[in-house]
Amino acid sequence: MIITSKDNEQIKHIRKLKDKKFRDKQGEFFVEGMKLVREAIDEKADIRTIVICDECAETGRFEPKDLYEIAKHNCLYVSEKVFNHICDVQNPQGILAVIGKMQNTKKIEYNEDLIVILDGVQDPGNMGTILRTLDSVGLSQVIVSDICVDVYNPKVVRATMGAVFRINIIESEDLTETIKDLKKNKIEIVVTALDTNKSIYDVEYKKMAIIIGNEVNGVSPELVKLADKKAKIPMFGRTESLNAAVAASVVLYEYVRQKVTKSSSKETK
Amino acid sequence: MIITSKDNEQIKHIRKLKDKKFRDKQGEFFVEGMKLVREAIDEKADIRTIVICDECAETGRFEPKDLYEIAKHNCLYVSEKVFNHICDVQNPQGILAVIGKMQNTKKIEYNEDLIVILDGVQDPGNMGTILRTLDSVGLSQVIVSDICVDVYNPKVVRATMGAVFRINIIESEDLTETIKDLKKNKIEIVVTALDTNKSIYDVEYKKMAIIIGNEVNGVSPELVKLADKKAKIPMFGRTESLNAAVAASVVLYEYVRQKVTKSSSKETK
Repeated sequence: MIITSKDNEQIKHIRKLKDKKFRDKQGEFFVEGMKLVREAIDEKADIRTIVICDECAETGRFEPKDLYEIAKHNCLYVSEKVFNHICDVQNPQGILAVIGKMQNTKKIEYNEDLIVILDGVQDPGNMGTILRTLDSVGLSQVIVSDICVDVYNPKVVRATMGAVFRINIIESEDLTETIKDLKKNKIEIVVTALDTNKSIYDVEYKKMAIIIGNEVNGVSPELVKLADKKAKIPMFGRTESLNAAVAASVVLYEYVRQKVTKSSSKETK
Repeated sequence: MIITSKDNEQIKHIRKLKDKKFRDKQGEFFVEGMKLVREAIDEKADIRTIVICDECAETGRFEPKDLYEIAKHNCLYVSEKVFNHICDVQNPQGILAVIGKMQNTKKIEYNEDLIVILDGVQDPGNMGTILRTLDSVGLSQVIVSDICVDVYNPKVVRATMGAVFRINIIESEDLTETIKDLKKNKIEIVVTALDTNKSIYDVEYKKMAIIIGNEVNGVSPELVKLADKKAKIPMFGRTESLNAAVAASVVLYEYVRQKVTKSSSKETK
């Protein structure tokens, strides 16, 4: 059966998942496009429903091996009009999956040398790109405050390129408390700031947490007060600032550099 | 006089500047929003016309000191309907400036320790962000091939945050020839690639040029062949790749790190 009405209850349910409150209440979100649906399958995410645009499936847009995997799930065939009504992108690819939120624990893994805390990252593209980079540098977790954009926002999910399935996303309701806990566990708290002579290249990335702030206002003053160290990203041009995802990635890649350089100097010994 | 008709010849001219061919022919482009107009004024760009949405000006959206600067230029007051017809953004800020393209020379400055070559960067946001980072690390030039997105595309210009006014953009019609010229001038050519054991942290950033490739296909094979060295950005997670602007920025910031570390070790001596 092909659903052709926007008033279908299941369609109304899925469309409402664009809204954070409804996502929180249902513990569900959705991902769009074959690449992300494939990632969800590969990562064994809790796929509740896969919605397929009937016209797209008919024109052979999907590969047989993907369709075979998809068919193992609860599928909903809908008309193109209905599909476009649900989805969030300008050029829909004709497939989306409704997924139960990851069973992220609230427990922080203290054994990673770098813990990343996001305090008020607002732009969905930046948030998604930061999660993507986090995954690329081999970190398994991130702490986000409740003033950040929701990580299950469709635009964020898209920009993560699948990293959302792999990272333990710890949603902190009170960053001050979380940071105090980190300090009790002997984690050094570093913030990026401009009013310091120290650069990120002077910091030893070991048992440390770094706070990355809002695109415009940076890290909240009350968190800056709790920090053990400030470090800046050196800048030489007349451009006032870096894109937030770029700044975060530069900070994260210094972690990679120290790790790679250390292990190669060990090899030489 | 307030222009209220979309058929006004000046309005039709400005709107056509969304099209690359027309931009090339006229040697003009436009920037939107007060921040970029202010940058254009500060950088003494060749401002031909400033277009102001009359309703926006009336509601006091602009600051008096900005209006004073703006009034020194050739101004065009238009109705909100006409303004929205011209401009490129979803939430227009009610001001844009038509600017003569920068008098970029085709001459490469060989004395910079790092020369960046962009080969087929396609996404406007990525292109703009890369130019913004280039400016932040203190580089004065970039070489772009003609298969890159046009740097004067309104979306690119917006993402540069003004860096477009400050960087010498060298448009190469034949990258192969350009690279041969660089080699004649004793510049070492490095490409980012995955099929190598060397990382960017093994490369000494000195008299070198780095080629950054297309988002999906990387650097063109014929240019890879011309390279003296391959280097990879280390990756540890299951995410296949970095965002292109992030990858470029990680490469560029290793230049900063080497510069900063060198100068501080000199100071210690």
